Amino acid sequence: MKVDGKTMHPIWLDSDRDTVQIIDQRRLPHELTIVALQSVEDVVAAIQKMMVRGAPLIGVTAAYGMFIAARNHAGAPESLRQAAERIRSARPTAVNLVWAVDRMRAVAMEAPEGAERIEILCREAARIADEEIENCRRIGEHGRPLLEALSRAKNGAPVNVLTHCNAGWLACVEFGTATAPIYAAHDAGIPVHVWVDETRPLNQGARLTAWELGRHGVAHTVITDNAGGHLMQQGSVDMVIVGTDRTTVTGDVANKIGTYLKALAAKDNDVPFYVALPSSTIDWNLRDGLRQIPIEERDPDEIRYVEGRSGDQSCRVQIVPDLSPAANFAFDVTPARLVTGLITERGICKAEEKDIRKLFPEKS
Amino acid sequence: MKVDGKTMHPIWLDSDRDTVQIIDQRRLPHELTIVALQSVEDVVAAIQKMMVRGAPLIGVTAAYGMFIAARNHAGAPESLRQAAERIRSARPTAVNLVWAVDRMRAVAMEAPEGAERIEILCREAARIADEEIENCRRIGEHGRPLLEALSRAKNGAPVNVLTHCNAGWLACVEFGTATAPIYAAHDAGIPVHVWVDETRPLNQGARLTAWELGRHGVAHTVITDNAGGHLMQQGSVDMVIVGTDRTTVTGDVANKIGTYLKALAAKDNDVPFYVALPSSTIDWNLRDGLRQIPIEERDPDEIRYVEGRSGDQSCRVQIVPDLSPAANFAFDVTPARLVTGLITERGICKAEEKDIRKLFPEKS
Repeated sequence: MKVDGKTMHPIWLDSDRDTVQIIDQRRLPHELTIVALQSVEDVVAAIQKMMVRGAPLIGVTAAYGMFIAARNHAGAPESLRQAAERIRSARPTAVNLVWAVDRMRAVAMEAPEGAERIEILCREAARIADEEIENCRRIGEHGRPLLEALSRAKNGAPVNVLTHCNAGWLACVEFGTATAPIYAAHDAGIPVHVWVDETRPLNQGARLTAWELGRHGVAHTVITDNAGGHLMQQGSVDMVIVGTDRTTVTGDVANKIGTYLKALAAKDNDVPFYVALPSSTIDWNLRDGLRQIPIEERDPDEIRYVEGRSGDQSCRVQIVPDLSPAANFAFDVTPARLVTGLITERGICKAEEKDIRKLFPEKS
Repeated sequence: MKVDGKTMHPIWLDSDRDTVQIIDQRRLPHELTIVALQSVEDVVAAIQKMMVRGAPLIGVTAAYGMFIAARNHAGAPESLRQAAERIRSARPTAVNLVWAVDRMRAVAMEAPEGAERIEILCREAARIADEEIENCRRIGEHGRPLLEALSRAKNGAPVNVLTHCNAGWLACVEFGTATAPIYAAHDAGIPVHVWVDETRPLNQGARLTAWELGRHGVAHTVITDNAGGHLMQQGSVDMVIVGTDRTTVTGDVANKIGTYLKALAAKDNDVPFYVALPSSTIDWNLRDGLRQIPIEERDPDEIRYVEGRSGDQSCRVQIVPDLSPAANFAFDVTPARLVTGLITERGICKAEEKDIRKLFPEKS
């Protein structure tokens, strides 16, 4: 999407095909900082510190990490094995990380050694990025009619969509997952207004989704994570769309902590609750999200301190008393029974195994 | 309760019975700042700016405000009428504000004029404060057996209570409402651990509840408002206790924004959800909380900026992009169907009219 009229992606390979560049998303919205990833350490740190985040983007970054590993060690299999292990375990919840690393490693194993292997891995990482872009474009295409129908039912009044966290282009290379139907509707002239959950503790909604939507000209309002239930009770939310970090083959959805609460409120108020995802986010091996998806627990200081801007400076303020402990669970699992539908690159399906497999028969 | 070994209240009348002192709760937990209220303007500002907050404390502050009005204007009826009007409309949601002002005005009307009227109003405000203390003490007494039973069922393992916002002694003069059963259980040797919702946007949980509990030695952990559902899914919450700003006679509960989401999660996970309240919080005229309780909308800058401490300085950081609007709803309504029970100064009852009226027959 556009930033100040210029198309921008959260990750790209420099024109000399040598340096992988990323937007340091920790600095947004107040600073647009570009960082070069030179080593596997850089890649792991970028993922762990959430300079890049969002399941699809984590996968693409991991893929480029495998290319960097090959380039730095002349494509040696042992260094690729080690890189794969380190990148795979950078964060536990998003399945795209494992998926992308395994795909890159399989390609590497079949490629000739030396420069050609490096070139092949470079092309494969770019292909993964391009596939994610195409997947997100299609998610937008499949999701747009939902907003169109709501707009018609409201006689053209703006459709109010609530979203949680950032499942926008910053999380996905381009278009986003949850935002793809929103951008597609907006670009088609359908009036849309987005309620943006701020998404504590790292405020990806307030910082990233609000920034993205604003730069693209989509009407939006930032609210606290606490407010969505009240808005639904008041009839001010027409639909919810969120992304996901891992979805089981039975339709249970792991996503940013707090998603489950919004799904409960949507159910209680008959508001449709959609999850938008490329199929790379589906874990075909898991059947019980609540028991089987590992939930990352992050540094409690992410709760104890809030980062922002004070004057021209970025600044971190402490909000929790010195001696009070905090706990920082990064994701929760929304059971399939609360999900109205999954918006995938192949169309919309129910959050249940039969319907999911029907869209992706090759996975059976 | 104790702060550094010394008993402290959030409001008190100086020993010369001349100055009303409050803790400026906006400065906690990093600074313990005492402010003197000298005029009706001071009182209205203290309530509006949330230097004092919490339904019972707002009521007590309003009562002292009527005393201040009488003292500053020799008890003149017209100035009392004007003061009542201004204080009553300082904030819209908590019913205690109206209740306390009307009670003070009725007492004033029956009192002789002049110095005696002022003295009577001073005594009446102190009586309201004492009644709130006694009410909260009894709420603790009635609620403690709930924690005792859970502790027994867990073979003495700590009882995990989740609370939202601050319904502690800072909100209530002493003991608190939601915290009263917690303090009572803790003081009786029952092991308790409290999950403290940070409570965006003003972080009353992270700032005030964590501070209170820590100073009194109660084990607690601060979590984001997003985390409670996940903790309940994992079996890590044994009960929820919250306060309320206004409860209808039919048991609908207005409380800090986000309470409704926790009530939904409690229901979905069979976790008991209790609301602790003195009867001054019951609005005997309302039957439909969702339609009838006015929900305050506050300054969006409370969302756009977060206050905290940076080094030795208090500091405010901006987290939302410059051009993104925000909306700040302060309360939501939890329908009675989601409430396990009301813990009042006269005992526990169901959140339904028949049961509520049985405890307070004089209101029928």
